[in-house]
Amino acid sequence: MPTVSIKTVSFHPSIWPKMIGEVSPDAKPGDLVEVLDKQGETFGWGFFNPRSNMPLRIVSHGKDPIDEDFFIDAIRDAAELRKGIFHLGEHTSAYRCIHADADRLPGLVADRFGDILSLEITTLAAWQRLDTWIPALHEAFGTERTHIQIDPKLARIECIPTKQAHPLATPGIRKVKIDEHGATFEIDFAEGHKTGFFCDQRDNRLRLAKLASGRSMLDLCCYSGGFSVHAAKAGAKEIHAVDLDEKAIAMAQRNANLNGTRIKFTHADAFTWARTMVENGREWDLVLADPPKFVTGRDDEKGRGKYHDLNKLAAQLVRPGGFLVTCSCSGMLNEFEFEKLVTTAVHKLGRRLQIFDRTGPGPDHPTLSNYPESRYLKVIWARVW
Amino acid sequence: MPTVSIKTVSFHPSIWPKMIGEVSPDAKPGDLVEVLDKQGETFGWGFFNPRSNMPLRIVSHGKDPIDEDFFIDAIRDAAELRKGIFHLGEHTSAYRCIHADADRLPGLVADRFGDILSLEITTLAAWQRLDTWIPALHEAFGTERTHIQIDPKLARIECIPTKQAHPLATPGIRKVKIDEHGATFEIDFAEGHKTGFFCDQRDNRLRLAKLASGRSMLDLCCYSGGFSVHAAKAGAKEIHAVDLDEKAIAMAQRNANLNGTRIKFTHADAFTWARTMVENGREWDLVLADPPKFVTGRDDEKGRGKYHDLNKLAAQLVRPGGFLVTCSCSGMLNEFEFEKLVTTAVHKLGRRLQIFDRTGPGPDHPTLSNYPESRYLKVIWARVW
Repeated sequence: MPTVSIKTVSFHPSIWPKMIGEVSPDAKPGDLVEVLDKQGETFGWGFFNPRSNMPLRIVSHGKDPIDEDFFIDAIRDAAELRKGIFHLGEHTSAYRCIHADADRLPGLVADRFGDILSLEITTLAAWQRLDTWIPALHEAFGTERTHIQIDPKLARIECIPTKQAHPLATPGIRKVKIDEHGATFEIDFAEGHKTGFFCDQRDNRLRLAKLASGRSMLDLCCYSGGFSVHAAKAGAKEIHAVDLDEKAIAMAQRNANLNGTRIKFTHADAFTWARTMVENGREWDLVLADPPKFVTGRDDEKGRGKYHDLNKLAAQLVRPGGFLVTCSCSGMLNEFEFEKLVTTAVHKLGRRLQIFDRTGPGPDHPTLSNYPESRYLKVIWARVW
Repeated sequence: MPTVSIKTVSFHPSIWPKMIGEVSPDAKPGDLVEVLDKQGETFGWGFFNPRSNMPLRIVSHGKDPIDEDFFIDAIRDAAELRKGIFHLGEHTSAYRCIHADADRLPGLVADRFGDILSLEITTLAAWQRLDTWIPALHEAFGTERTHIQIDPKLARIECIPTKQAHPLATPGIRKVKIDEHGATFEIDFAEGHKTGFFCDQRDNRLRLAKLASGRSMLDLCCYSGGFSVHAAKAGAKEIHAVDLDEKAIAMAQRNANLNGTRIKFTHADAFTWARTMVENGREWDLVLADPPKFVTGRDDEKGRGKYHDLNKLAAQLVRPGGFLVTCSCSGMLNEFEFEKLVTTAVHKLGRRLQIFDRTGPGPDHPTLSNYPESRYLKVIWARVW
């Protein structure tokens, strides 16, 4: 097997270019390689691609050799977690099958939407192995059709050929309906924002629906309506949902209709709209804020400011003793920073949060202990006093 | 109303002695006082006790005056959260009714165990108001009997008279059986460690039981058996539960019998016992570690070391791909620190955690946004590879 040396010991799965030492001449882009430490001892095993931003992705540490079967086992273990252990199929036909490094498959994110396996490929190594991985995935998860997405920019960096569709991609996939905790959603593969549906909030949608029952609710940044539809089905009243993305609002309206729910949708910028509502003295029993990723870098103060501002507006729209449910999907902003931004914003109003839960994504979105920054979704559940 | 000035502005509910400025001559220990800032402007309202470690406990910020009704409203709001919003009574007859400052009632912790209201009093102000608070609590929570606990050391500091039992305390309370998610537990008010039952892990017990079903399980620091009993009822096999406290093991055995479950209990030090099991090469499908509070101060390195050691042992007892569920109830150790201790210990074994959830206590143990250090319980759920 080809070898790649690393100059510094790091148990992180992704190794930066400057940490790469000697590379054996037979190491080709996308190869599974043996990783050696400075002393030439086996340190682990990983995927190599000299052109990548992360030329080495370590999948296994220690001296035990691995081969291509390692990844087929990883697919089966991933299916065991979702199906055998958490029985996700009993509650939904949409869940994340493979969560990249956290499932020992760097470069592969796979979601199932009904019978469709939706793959997002971000490494050449993953691309090269699709011929064996795709059949293994279908077998493990019971899916049939294959949808493959590759970001064109990443494809260029990784040298993934994208001129022709992958031969295993199923042609003509457009729409599919999925079921989640008894609600139906339409997934549109032709629309933007990936697929219009984020599985990671599944359990939070159910939790919110229980909380919203019998209460008035404002859904800021409602996207395709997941939270509002579940809340409406659970008996929330006077739901008002707002999003800046016209296509998302159209999807949300379709999803509301599919479930026979009545939700008031407004196509507007959440900040501007909320500011007007504050001026008008409007209040809701429950305000949910689930904005897109605002923070894109470690030093992104502008993004942090957006969380502050949105939460300050959202809290003003909660009646005293009502609920604020606020989310961040910015991986660059950890839980403590997010909670501090939220509480600072609320304290400036002379109000306080009685926080009764903090949640993350469902168990189909695990994280590795040696890759803590892959934790991205966090949700704070609080009463506002 | 008497007034107390503070020298520095802090929105924390507890004010240290050095932060206290002028006190009006009519301010008596236990009084509800108006809190003034340095300029003499109203800053908030709180309880005063010059002899206390925390002479001022602010319950409300801002200029709106409050009176004794504020606390009766706080009791009703606390009941609304537990009963009206989370319907805890549908799942259990044991839950925390009042979580001190987080429910705007500093100095009062109240748990219900069936018809018994179990109060823990830590401030003179709370003690002085029991005549009105106890009837309000019984009315709000539907309880009948009253059990009152006061730590003798705290009573001396706060000048709470403890020579005679409080007239509203029900005499002769000894034992009561409670129901939690379909399991029965005996609460013994005469035994040590408070009551032998911690409501905060309720939802985690249910979650663990689902995970343990059909799997072998090791329960390190099992205390009165809450986790093991739920796991056994859910179909876990070969449960082995270990605790250093002989009385706890006796309680756990009684609880196992009450539920008709078979659990193997061992009275032993978890560290020593686990070390022997590691030497013997024993492995379980699931290992739970829920030790007592190891870290008692900001600089308690010894306590931190115990978490490291226990988790290193626990992880070695998990078969590859099996589960580690590890808890910390040390408020002085935040989530990040705890997760770092656990992952460092596991990484030293050359193994990795696939973390699929992080949870805290149930919603009957809320925390205030201006009192983040009151978050104490955290649980990490992971597969060990």
